[in-house]
Amino acid sequence: MNFMSDNVTGAAPEILDAIVKANGGTAPSYGNDDWTKRLTQSLSDLFERDVAVFPVATGTAANALALAALTPPWGSIYCHAEAHIQADECGAPEMFTGGAKLVTLPGEHGKLTPSTLSAALDRVHKGFVHVVQPAALSLSQLTECGTAYSPAEVAALTAVARHHGLRVHMDGARFANAVASLGCSPADITWRAGVDVLSFGATKNGALGAEAVVFFDRELSENFGYRRKRAAHLFSKMRFLSAQLEAYVQGGLWLRLAGHANRMAMRLADGLSALPGAHLAHPVDGNEIFIALPEPVIAGLEAAGFGFYRWDGNVVRLVAAWNSDEAAVEALLTAARRLAG
Amino acid sequence: MNFMSDNVTGAAPEILDAIVKANGGTAPSYGNDDWTKRLTQSLSDLFERDVAVFPVATGTAANALALAALTPPWGSIYCHAEAHIQADECGAPEMFTGGAKLVTLPGEHGKLTPSTLSAALDRVHKGFVHVVQPAALSLSQLTECGTAYSPAEVAALTAVARHHGLRVHMDGARFANAVASLGCSPADITWRAGVDVLSFGATKNGALGAEAVVFFDRELSENFGYRRKRAAHLFSKMRFLSAQLEAYVQGGLWLRLAGHANRMAMRLADGLSALPGAHLAHPVDGNEIFIALPEPVIAGLEAAGFGFYRWDGNVVRLVAAWNSDEAAVEALLTAARRLAG
Amino acid sequence: MNFMSDNVTGAAPEILDAIVKANGGTAPSYGNDDWTKRLTQSLSDLFERDVAVFPVATGTAANALALAALTPPWGSIYCHAEAHIQADECGAPEMFTGGAKLVTLPGEHGKLTPSTLSAALDRVHKGFVHVVQPAALSLSQLTECGTAYSPAEVAALTAVARHHGLRVHMDGARFANAVASLGCSPADITWRAGVDVLSFGATKNGALGAEAVVFFDRELSENFGYRRKRAAHLFSKMRFLSAQLEAYVQGGLWLRLAGHANRMAMRLADGLSALPGAHLAHPVDGNEIFIALPEPVIAGLEAAGFGFYRWDGNVVRLVAAWNSDEAAVEALLTAARRLAG
Amino acid sequence: MNFMSDNVTGAAPEILDAIVKANGGTAPSYGNDDWTKRLTQSLSDLFERDVAVFPVATGTAANALALAALTPPWGSIYCHAEAHIQADECGAPEMFTGGAKLVTLPGEHGKLTPSTLSAALDRVHKGFVHVVQPAALSLSQLTECGTAYSPAEVAALTAVARHHGLRVHMDGARFANAVASLGCSPADITWRAGVDVLSFGATKNGALGAEAVVFFDRELSENFGYRRKRAAHLFSKMRFLSAQLEAYVQGGLWLRLAGHANRMAMRLADGLSALPGAHLAHPVDGNEIFIALPEPVIAGLEAAGFGFYRWDGNVVRLVAAWNSDEAAVEALLTAARRLAG
Repeated sequence: MNFMSDNVTGAAPEILDAIVKANGGTAPSYGNDDWTKRLTQSLSDLFERDVAVFPVATGTAANALALAALTPPWGSIYCHAEAHIQADECGAPEMFTGGAKLVTLPGEHGKLTPSTLSAALDRVHKGFVHVVQPAALSLSQLTECGTAYSPAEVAALTAVARHHGLRVHMDGARFANAVASLGCSPADITWRAGVDVLSFGATKNGALGAEAVVFFDRELSENFGYRRKRAAHLFSKMRFLSAQLEAYVQGGLWLRLAGHANRMAMRLADGLSALPGAHLAHPVDGNEIFIALPEPVIAGLEAAGFGFYRWDGNVVRLVAAWNSDEAAVEALLTAARRLAG
Repeated sequence: MNFMSDNVTGAAPEILDAIVKANGGTAPSYGNDDWTKRLTQSLSDLFERDVAVFPVATGTAANALALAALTPPWGSIYCHAEAHIQADECGAPEMFTGGAKLVTLPGEHGKLTPSTLSAALDRVHKGFVHVVQPAALSLSQLTECGTAYSPAEVAALTAVARHHGLRVHMDGARFANAVASLGCSPADITWRAGVDVLSFGATKNGALGAEAVVFFDRELSENFGYRRKRAAHLFSKMRFLSAQLEAYVQGGLWLRLAGHANRMAMRLADGLSALPGAHLAHPVDGNEIFIALPEPVIAGLEAAGFGFYRWDGNVVRLVAAWNSDEAAVEALLTAARRLAG
Repeated sequence: MNFMSDNVTGAAPEILDAIVKANGGTAPSYGNDDWTKRLTQSLSDLFERDVAVFPVATGTAANALALAALTPPWGSIYCHAEAHIQADECGAPEMFTGGAKLVTLPGEHGKLTPSTLSAALDRVHKGFVHVVQPAALSLSQLTECGTAYSPAEVAALTAVARHHGLRVHMDGARFANAVASLGCSPADITWRAGVDVLSFGATKNGALGAEAVVFFDRELSENFGYRRKRAAHLFSKMRFLSAQLEAYVQGGLWLRLAGHANRMAMRLADGLSALPGAHLAHPVDGNEIFIALPEPVIAGLEAAGFGFYRWDGNVVRLVAAWNSDEAAVEALLTAARRLAG
Repeated sequence: MNFMSDNVTGAAPEILDAIVKANGGTAPSYGNDDWTKRLTQSLSDLFERDVAVFPVATGTAANALALAALTPPWGSIYCHAEAHIQADECGAPEMFTGGAKLVTLPGEHGKLTPSTLSAALDRVHKGFVHVVQPAALSLSQLTECGTAYSPAEVAALTAVARHHGLRVHMDGARFANAVASLGCSPADITWRAGVDVLSFGATKNGALGAEAVVFFDRELSENFGYRRKRAAHLFSKMRFLSAQLEAYVQGGLWLRLAGHANRMAMRLADGLSALPGAHLAHPVDGNEIFIALPEPVIAGLEAAGFGFYRWDGNVVRLVAAWNSDEAAVEALLTAARRLAG
């Protein structure tokens, strides 16, 4: 009955099993193991391109390290005003980049638009030493509002970025939910749409703690090994990160897990939005629901022990996870209907 | 047959089991879970003092974050010339402290001496803005030469540090091996001997990937939560770190594991040092052996598939682990005796 | 005929003379000279309080260093969206603070309002490690729109800051123009109104290159000497900075110079705003004028060799300086009237 | 009678005069002025090569910024153990480089040797992410012991550096004294000998406060403008820095000033080293003397009001300057002879 976040869940059985299996015997440390080698191949297959892969253990590490590879300290990173890198990482991007500046832009439903981005970049005095120089665009997929950019939307934004000389990062903490929802290939929504580097999230969607920084432009990763080590994110027993990620993508597990979460979210969204006085704050493209509900419904659900966030005013956020229980979803809807009654 | 390092091993069954057990149900994220709460109590019991505990996943994170809590950017950290923080972390302490300086000192067998430290600190012009100001002493326990400081040795060094206004950090990547070897209480070798903050290692001694920064002076930890988050080391599914650490100390597991490693190391040391032409480079106080061997013995062992490091010239390093196999130890000794002919 | 900026001017004769006079003989280096000692007394007299004074040579240095003394790397600095520290210093505050975040707020005519500030600070989740913590408020006086905060306005803003635990910095690159315009005492508009540290500008108002960081709360300056040295802003021949600043305040020179600049600006403002199609974009409280003019007037003045900035659309900025020539002002007005004719 | 340091002096008349002359009229700010343009030409002529020139105001700024252009944060800078960048800048290089590491090497009389450097670089595990990667060599000319590297010595060191992929910085705080002493061309001792970037000092040798970062490899300077601005070392009234530097090199003034200082130093050295019980600690190649004297001589000279540094034990440092008075030199020698008598 906990819809607070997808990170309140544990690990999927297949992933836990992979850890247990990886536990036998010795293995070279610091990523020189077979799991890590296989992982690069797995993700190259998945993305239909030779990618450079760097497992790390937190999404903040994936994001902050990836951004540090894209911008000098005197650069700026363009992102949505509600982007996780801006709002929820206590300045990690600033720390890892040596003090680059995040430039935030507005956009409905958590999405940037080409016109807003273009206008912002046009205003910058390029080559003028008094101002930080645009270096990177960071897109969240899913966005912080639970919406998904289509491949065309991503391509339109990266075209603007490219025109102004920016490199493109995608924060994919909920990348699986986006891909499962869009039904596109991972390649279509990333490098084919102009993305240079992806924070490929797994923790929220069934891993214990594993993310991968995936470079589509391998040249950008040239010094990434030093960055990761220096930032204390190089694991001695790396096989346990890589084993999680390998299991995560094997046989499409990641999309099955995300697909389930998305369906549970959709069921919650359909049920709740049918209540009198309810309306969705944002389209539900993945596993997150932002919905305005009457206060008695909110309070009643809380009293009944359902877990979710009071987001803003009478808007609440519910997040479905890879293992969200259908019965729990139904129980919440039943309770909500009764309260709204 | 792999004595390259203790980090080539997997996780102890009890610790893996704790992860599996922790996997049931949902839990509040980012350390607001029961495992993390219990862990603070466990370590407070272990250290006979109310400690502040911050789980992280790598030893580099533990060290660099702990040091950042002890020094301003214009401070200096005194350590042995071979200290891991100086020699093996690609500048992580410099990154996390905002550019503090490591001042390295010599010392036999990896140990600093009060006289060397005192002389170095006496030479510093205190309060002179042209020079970085001594802020912290960092001791490795075990040292990088596999030796252990006695409580009296630690106390003598921290007394010098205290006299000059420095705070004291202990890099305990192999703290368990030291405590098992010394037979003292964890308190005796840390805060009772003047240590302010400990990097309490578990990864090398049977965890998958878990370390704890333990503050004996809780005031020093005031802003540590921000530091950890900002450095991308706050885990959303923290329970999986805390569960490892809880199992690690429960019922003295950590000392049993370390004790086994130490015994295996001692057996290797005894056997190898009896060979003609062999001599130990350093006393063996824990699970690491540094020993000069005749080149034919080294080459022969390598050819036979035994894993270890060529350290320096004809000195090799062998590291025994929590799960080092007695049979493997005997096999290595038998082979070595045959080679030494 | 150059109204581009007040920094296109040279040094006032009195200040140049002070440099020449300071050139005799030897003097202890790095600020241990008599000029620097006297300066602290001069500014303590001027501000009616024992202040700590640190001369530096650029306004960016004064601002970035002062802010670094007020915020940890995980802190945030609240400022106007157009503040110089945000818009014109290429990320220097981020560099000097170790990556703190600037939070920008809107406000008419370059001024923050207590309600906007209060609302922004109320929204922050205090003590929540995922978000940077409000640490400082930075006010520009004059603002970037050429307006001046009254003592009551400053006090109202600092009261909000104080309520939320923030320290207060004032960017006084044009502090003299503000004080000359307000007719208040320097103390009234700074520490008596709640300001902790001031970037006391002199360069724009008649110095060669000299600013002072003035701490009203001397405790905040405890480690400032290290910060300044480490940032490479400790001058060996400090007497030449201090001599400039000493001459600058001696006998009220700074206010005479600023008063002249303000009068010239007011004359320009009065003359230009009387033109058909002209209107001031902001009140003129000091030596800067932002005024919308018909394009033919702008283009005509440019063609005639008058120097000023095209700011935004048909708004231009003209800045009068300590030595702006009355004849040049009249010449510009005459030309403008003819063009508007 | 002050031989404490060359930075206790004022400015040479020619340089002060240049400032006074530069004070007429307005000039574009931030280096877009004619003085700065001419300076680039002057230094290109002086160094017989098209150089990129960036005036700054302190030697620490010149050094720390130059080094930041040569090394990534995970790089290391090789320098003498007594180098100013290591011993006297409060960690400025660490701050400006984002936390790179200084690796110090021993060497008689303040000079590095190719064999020591080569041995140190051979020991580094290149491409190994656990260790910082050698990025730059920094040579001081004059050294901190007052000695000068010959062009051949510089070339031998830079050849080693080049072989290992390092770029080369020269800290020329007393570059003029070295060139005057060596009698070589500025080009011979810099880029022709393998130096990439020079901190061209003027402050100690007759400027008020002016240094230039001179890039012989202009590509290395590509982003230097951002670095300088961000570090708060871009002067709005740049003409006053450039005018100093222009006058400094015009007509060979810099070498005349340095030549005088060197002669005064040599006279002091000759006179003092002839005293019973005296011996020079280092050869005197420029304007600094390090000499062991009997304690009664030291104490007597101090009592008589002569200024100098007690360096180490009974070794004192005396520094002659561009304006050191022959009479003062003779007075000191007379007093010393009497005391040694």
